Amino acid sequence: MMAASQRLSSKHLLGIKDLNTQDIELILETANNFKDVINRPIKKVPSLRDITIANIFFENSTRTKLSFELAQKRLSADVVNFAASSSSVSKGETLIDTVNNILSMKVDMVVMRHPYPGAGVFLSKHINAQIVNAGDGAHEHPTQALLDAFSIKEKLGEVAGKKVVIVGDVLHSRVALSNILCLQKLGAEVMVCGPTTLIPKYIHTLGVKVEHNLMKALNWCDVANMLRIQLERQDIKYFPSLREYSMMYGLNKQILDSLDKKIIVMHPGPINRGVEITSDVADSQQSIILDQVENGVAVRMAVLYLLASQKG
Amino acid sequence: MMAASQRLSSKHLLGIKDLNTQDIELILETANNFKDVINRPIKKVPSLRDITIANIFFENSTRTKLSFELAQKRLSADVVNFAASSSSVSKGETLIDTVNNILSMKVDMVVMRHPYPGAGVFLSKHINAQIVNAGDGAHEHPTQALLDAFSIKEKLGEVAGKKVVIVGDVLHSRVALSNILCLQKLGAEVMVCGPTTLIPKYIHTLGVKVEHNLMKALNWCDVANMLRIQLERQDIKYFPSLREYSMMYGLNKQILDSLDKKIIVMHPGPINRGVEITSDVADSQQSIILDQVENGVAVRMAVLYLLASQKG
Amino acid sequence: MMAASQRLSSKHLLGIKDLNTQDIELILETANNFKDVINRPIKKVPSLRDITIANIFFENSTRTKLSFELAQKRLSADVVNFAASSSSVSKGETLIDTVNNILSMKVDMVVMRHPYPGAGVFLSKHINAQIVNAGDGAHEHPTQALLDAFSIKEKLGEVAGKKVVIVGDVLHSRVALSNILCLQKLGAEVMVCGPTTLIPKYIHTLGVKVEHNLMKALNWCDVANMLRIQLERQDIKYFPSLREYSMMYGLNKQILDSLDKKIIVMHPGPINRGVEITSDVADSQQSIILDQVENGVAVRMAVLYLLASQKG
Repeated sequence: MMAASQRLSSKHLLGIKDLNTQDIELILETANNFKDVINRPIKKVPSLRDITIANIFFENSTRTKLSFELAQKRLSADVVNFAASSSSVSKGETLIDTVNNILSMKVDMVVMRHPYPGAGVFLSKHINAQIVNAGDGAHEHPTQALLDAFSIKEKLGEVAGKKVVIVGDVLHSRVALSNILCLQKLGAEVMVCGPTTLIPKYIHTLGVKVEHNLMKALNWCDVANMLRIQLERQDIKYFPSLREYSMMYGLNKQILDSLDKKIIVMHPGPINRGVEITSDVADSQQSIILDQVENGVAVRMAVLYLLASQKG
Repeated sequence: MMAASQRLSSKHLLGIKDLNTQDIELILETANNFKDVINRPIKKVPSLRDITIANIFFENSTRTKLSFELAQKRLSADVVNFAASSSSVSKGETLIDTVNNILSMKVDMVVMRHPYPGAGVFLSKHINAQIVNAGDGAHEHPTQALLDAFSIKEKLGEVAGKKVVIVGDVLHSRVALSNILCLQKLGAEVMVCGPTTLIPKYIHTLGVKVEHNLMKALNWCDVANMLRIQLERQDIKYFPSLREYSMMYGLNKQILDSLDKKIIVMHPGPINRGVEITSDVADSQQSIILDQVENGVAVRMAVLYLLASQKG
Repeated sequence: MMAASQRLSSKHLLGIKDLNTQDIELILETANNFKDVINRPIKKVPSLRDITIANIFFENSTRTKLSFELAQKRLSADVVNFAASSSSVSKGETLIDTVNNILSMKVDMVVMRHPYPGAGVFLSKHINAQIVNAGDGAHEHPTQALLDAFSIKEKLGEVAGKKVVIVGDVLHSRVALSNILCLQKLGAEVMVCGPTTLIPKYIHTLGVKVEHNLMKALNWCDVANMLRIQLERQDIKYFPSLREYSMMYGLNKQILDSLDKKIIVMHPGPINRGVEITSDVADSQQSIILDQVENGVAVRMAVLYLLASQKG
């Protein structure tokens, strides 16, 4: 279908940290080809016909799992799903044993979500299979960052030189770190914006701007990526209330229209409508939220395809 | 495989209410062809090979979901399953956002079960995909009504002119309304029979007979559809006890054999043996309960096939 | 693919009890061919392309279910999964009704795990489909016994004449009885070893040796199959504590190295590392634990293939 003459520099996709700029550009370019595929009436290619992929999710994740599954089906891979809640994990088995057992059944690739940061890296050192990190706690979520970069490039023609602000709960987000690294490697300028309690202390080491005032951030940027407030991860005491958060960092149509330029609005989903963004913003022409979801399938096809061609 | 020269008058299957008699007859005729298919050694046809269908179930449903999945596999569709319990729904996302996200991944058709009446209709006004209602609360369950009509026609040659009594918990049933509408459109006479507390007040507006005496109802009918007592939906206080219900409205072999003619016995499942019907009735020659299950796959194949050919 | 000139003597696989020696040898030989298949780059064969298999699991089981699913996919069967927890079982339906409903949808074969001993046998008398027992309570788990025999034969060239000790919780194990019967039918000598409280009284009727001293058992055997301590099934009061158990019946590297010969170590998984066996034993050259998992897929392919060819 497409020449795999170029190769990723890594055997796994554990985080954006391990990718160089050429790797990222290769993934985005390959994803662009796959986006054509999934918009054809016949959406399938036989590329991964003899590959078996196990989706191992130690945390619930509807949309990421669905996106990976569709990517795998469109590539004609064989797919087995493993939900850790109903599993031998609860019987006291170690992570390595669980995954080694699955691999003994001749599985070629593992897509894993795990609540602990570094779970994928740890696993990659102990087992003999390719691993795709589908989110490890609040650490990395590389395919999300890649699809975000793809969506910005698709909309603005270029990532290099663009100004992107990531707004909200940077501290608890698995999306923020991967996004910052990915955007920087592609030459964008990155700012984070949110209340002090939701911005991690280490943020300054990453070379990003920090801004606590939403209007200033929006006036600066070309793209605003409005993170989800992860209510289920919050320590309630230190947090501004939802109402305060929404008043200070929520994006509504009035604010959007008051800006000098038409910025692009992104959101990794699921949206708390009325909290991070109002419905008229989510559904506006400036929002590319559903493009992000669509591009997710193409980007994941690209990642799986490129990793599989590493093996040959 | 079969000429789709005839078309359904609707883009969706939201309820029997929206179908006209020709629509229903087209579905039953198409299902009849598919019933031949699933009884061949090779049970698959390539009809929906390039169609991706998402089964979105906001309520548990083993048999309906399994029946839809088998119908989809026999039609060679790509299937993704979405169980709402383990999903972003619990993270506060709206129904429209959830479904729009799934659709952005290039899903062609949505089969949805939802606890709220009208959920399918609501969704069809806000999203751009074909929707099949697999049960919306106690409102409609159109494929069940279609498979019931198919089974009656298969057994008795004709639905028109037949007398069908629906016995039991009409108030809480998602099967009753769809059945009444479907049977009437095909020219059958319909009666409902049960204790006053389980017959909805609006029933008289539907042009059905109401009977509180089981023997009278059975002596009148050609077909008795014995609804399931939905223990999980009951308000205990107003309800006859299970024992009272079973004594007054339960169908046993003695009653069945005492009737002048051999009526047909149906049940949408799952059966509470000994409550609505006794085992010797469920397993008797007059019962077509397992035929209903078998026909369900053929009818759902027909619905999916006819809706998919709407698009071309 | 391979000539099905030989046939199993039974229509079902309910337990090792019903198989004769030729049956077992036929399964192992067929599994050997399938092991070649799953080690090829193209791991699929079209053998069961027109067969629909329902996996009906009334108990959680990650690895057995995954192994069956992969076996089914490698054979190109259509697979539907039925998890009893989210099912009509909780609505009061009987086992026979549940399974008959599934079969009415034209399912050819049922793979069932059930908590009650004899559930498969019971079902086979009441429904018209082929049944594979994937574990019925603490009774039989025939495919596990077959894969264990396959793994011993693969490692030692022969099962006949070998000495196998089954160590640990024989009382609560679904693996023990099937293993004893299978190994004896293939001509091995079998011993069980464990505390009195975990050895069933009826064991003497099976013609196995009983030993309560681990060192004596290990010095006698060629193969030690270290059962899992089923913490979730224990009556705490009568049981040695985990620490006592581990000290008296746990296998560590020091013990293993002190033996005169290099015995083979097996474990049905999931392992409680540090309880039944230490990590250095589990990961040693003498352990064939991961081979057992790999062979499980080949053995299950053989069972499904041979049963399917019964029908023709």
